[in-house]
Amino acid sequence: MKNPKVPFSPVEFRKETLYLLDQRKLPNREVWVACRTSRAVWKAIRHMIVRGAPAIGIAAGYGLYLGVRGFRGGRYEFMQELSRQGRYLDSSRPTARNLAYALERILNRVCLSRQDHIVDLKRLVLEEARQIHLDDIVLCRKIGQYGSRLFKRGDTILTHCNAGGLATSGYGTALAVFYALKEKKIPFSVFVDETRPLLQGARLTAWELSRSKIPATLICDNMAASLMRARKIQGVVVGADRIAMNGDTANKIGTYGVAVLAHVHRIPFYIAAPSTTFDLKAKTGKDIPIEERPHDEVRKLHGKQLAPKGIKVFNPSFDVTPAKYISGIITEAGVLRPPFARSIGKVKRLLEHA
Amino acid sequence: MKNPKVPFSPVEFRKETLYLLDQRKLPNREVWVACRTSRAVWKAIRHMIVRGAPAIGIAAGYGLYLGVRGFRGGRYEFMQELSRQGRYLDSSRPTARNLAYALERILNRVCLSRQDHIVDLKRLVLEEARQIHLDDIVLCRKIGQYGSRLFKRGDTILTHCNAGGLATSGYGTALAVFYALKEKKIPFSVFVDETRPLLQGARLTAWELSRSKIPATLICDNMAASLMRARKIQGVVVGADRIAMNGDTANKIGTYGVAVLAHVHRIPFYIAAPSTTFDLKAKTGKDIPIEERPHDEVRKLHGKQLAPKGIKVFNPSFDVTPAKYISGIITEAGVLRPPFARSIGKVKRLLEHA
Repeated sequence: MKNPKVPFSPVEFRKETLYLLDQRKLPNREVWVACRTSRAVWKAIRHMIVRGAPAIGIAAGYGLYLGVRGFRGGRYEFMQELSRQGRYLDSSRPTARNLAYALERILNRVCLSRQDHIVDLKRLVLEEARQIHLDDIVLCRKIGQYGSRLFKRGDTILTHCNAGGLATSGYGTALAVFYALKEKKIPFSVFVDETRPLLQGARLTAWELSRSKIPATLICDNMAASLMRARKIQGVVVGADRIAMNGDTANKIGTYGVAVLAHVHRIPFYIAAPSTTFDLKAKTGKDIPIEERPHDEVRKLHGKQLAPKGIKVFNPSFDVTPAKYISGIITEAGVLRPPFARSIGKVKRLLEHA
Repeated sequence: MKNPKVPFSPVEFRKETLYLLDQRKLPNREVWVACRTSRAVWKAIRHMIVRGAPAIGIAAGYGLYLGVRGFRGGRYEFMQELSRQGRYLDSSRPTARNLAYALERILNRVCLSRQDHIVDLKRLVLEEARQIHLDDIVLCRKIGQYGSRLFKRGDTILTHCNAGGLATSGYGTALAVFYALKEKKIPFSVFVDETRPLLQGARLTAWELSRSKIPATLICDNMAASLMRARKIQGVVVGADRIAMNGDTANKIGTYGVAVLAHVHRIPFYIAAPSTTFDLKAKTGKDIPIEERPHDEVRKLHGKQLAPKGIKVFNPSFDVTPAKYISGIITEAGVLRPPFARSIGKVKRLLEHA
């Protein structure tokens, strides 16, 4: 699917095949991976060929279609299979809320439909997957518009990990703010945390911002604090993998530290995420599962040993930033402000009636 | 020089040659580099074959001897040459205080001597270089003794970068505390920040602690904050490259962030450093020069491109932690406590009368 509104599209579905831009290979090579089964999509999510909460959701939606495309049988068995495939795809990674969101949304759509023919139900699955994809572009552009009002000419903004086009349908959440500022011709610049261990900042955000000619400076994660102290950062914008109803936010490991440091240095700290990232079942951050990833992600890089082979490693992929360190959550419905229990409550009601 | 008291010796001087364990190659290979001229030593310091403030000082001392070893001429010309070589070696890296300390100490020793024969003056230079080396072992062991009293059974301690045997004469400053705890048979464990961009934690501290069978877990720099929040860290100990007279401390980039995070989480944060790291001329951290290092240290690793080639980089090698975030400075004279202007003042008087 080509869409002229986005800088590029990391997820494309055509000819019964999901094409994913392999994010492990960027920025050195642009390689596309073709997925024709739900198992291939599961693997692509688990091994981070596609990553970023909204992009995972989009890929899983198409994955669900690929999982039932060849189904033969009756309506009841179809629903069973759809549910089974959904649970399977949901098991690929635990933290991103948008994954479950996409799968539940498709399941609900099919559940509530009056169609009886399996071929129509399959078409419905694909339609809803495409709609999730298209919706994401719209949500991201709205996030960019609202977020861009939070900054002024000459600001320097820090971001962590990649909440960009690559993490979404092509426009981003945190990076949507930057794209919108650029479109408005407001001069600004960006510091990019490299984001160990998988270097999504150095590899992906730096690549995206270079492509879009947005002035960006790459730093190691441990350098942000001294830049804050030197008053060289006026704001922080990051994405989110799951947001609890009190505002506690799971995002890429390191986000919590950045949030605390921003708080100490009196720098506004914003989360940018579509409402599909809110988890109605998570009351606080304690209800968010945190994935721990393979230890060699820290010990090795490009196949080279960085650390002694036997050394023990702790490698959580995410952390939770308590609501008290968050100045605002930039959503497609506007910038939510503390107390989040109330402002998210409004969005919750919207979601429940959607 | 072999010394049975240290776990290993990264700096050895024999047969008119300075041997340095190439710290860029660890932990994958143990390669020794032989330096026979002051220029070779200058390069070894600049390119971080030898690193860590005390080890740089020791290497520079021997480098000064190598610089004047072949001198022919009178006493006046010898002093001129010694001073010139000192300034030259001092230009290799800007932040470590121990570098200037070692060079000044040798110069003073020769200046004040009554020797007239050039051969005797050269012997004096070498003697003093050896003494600086031997002294460092003693200082480090004392730091270990004092520091080990700050922790109790079962504590988990975070360290950043490598303030270990490799950074000194073989026993370390921050790591001296760990070696002393181990010698006392007090059970404890360590979290090691990998320390981007040059990974001194992952490569060097992890290697040292593995060798010494001290239980250590490697983390990325951006993971410490969430471990602190989960109460999995009871204390932080790091080294120092230069300490101002008010207690402000320059150390490896990232130290400042760790200190602020420790403060917010009410975790004691200690600097471990010999008094040779105090800079009598630096009133506050503002007087400490901070080195910025080549940008490809961040963009590349093991020759592989991590980030887009043209991307702008900011790569300060150190940051300054304000005294207010430091719970204590562990020196060979005991643990200095705030207010540091007073406690360091005492050490200052000691230094001035030494």
